[in-house]
Amino acid sequence: MAKHTIESCAKAKMAIRDTLDIVGGKWKLVLISVLQSGKKGFNELSREAAISPRILSKELQEMEMNGLVSRKVCDTKPVTVQYELTPYSETLDDVLTAMEKWGFQHRNNIIQGIK
Amino acid sequence: MAKHTIESCAKAKMAIRDTLDIVGGKWKLVLISVLQSGKKGFNELSREAAISPRILSKELQEMEMNGLVSRKVCDTKPVTVQYELTPYSETLDDVLTAMEKWGFQHRNNIIQGIK
Repeated sequence: MAKHTIESCAKAKMAIRDTLDIVGGKWKLVLISVLQSGKKGFNELSREAAISPRILSKELQEMEMNGLVSRKVCDTKPVTVQYELTPYSETLDDVLTAMEKWGFQHRNNIIQGIK
Repeated sequence: MAKHTIESCAKAKMAIRDTLDIVGGKWKLVLISVLQSGKKGFNELSREAAISPRILSKELQEMEMNGLVSRKVCDTKPVTVQYELTPYSETLDDVLTAMEKWGFQHRNNIIQGIK
């Protein structure tokens, strides 16, 4: 990446902050990654992402608000709710791919004692 | 991005979590972005990233521990400390670039009322 000038640095800072505002924190990108294998019910998501129901509910609400996840109430007995990624969430693919690659590489580096 | 199978989903989840463990949170990627314009003193960093000294100190310590930032004590009067990105921090370029692009695009989408 090219070195930043003061102006481009300010722009970059703002853009990174914007992204962190929407998908920062411990869970949202993990939830998107989990939902990439298909729509899931609340309990299923809670189990697969290893996240408590209380926090999951809050995270999903924020993700829905930001257009990343859609929530569908199914007319079953008892009523069930399913969560699915929106097409807009796919705009985060590059972010997710880069983070997956880096996490994978970083773990390998640590295992090999290289840094 | 290809849809995940259960196995590749578990791998992806772990890698994303690893990345979030190292550079998640509100500040570290912003600090890297700020340091891309060159080494900086503690107060300069605190000002440019708009981060309180107490939190900045903790963030920098963690970043140093993970090999992302190097700390140099300069033999001046009074003693000053300078922080600089390590070559290893450059491995995060793709993550930063993707987040910059997404944040920029997301802000534009909101301004234009498209989502």
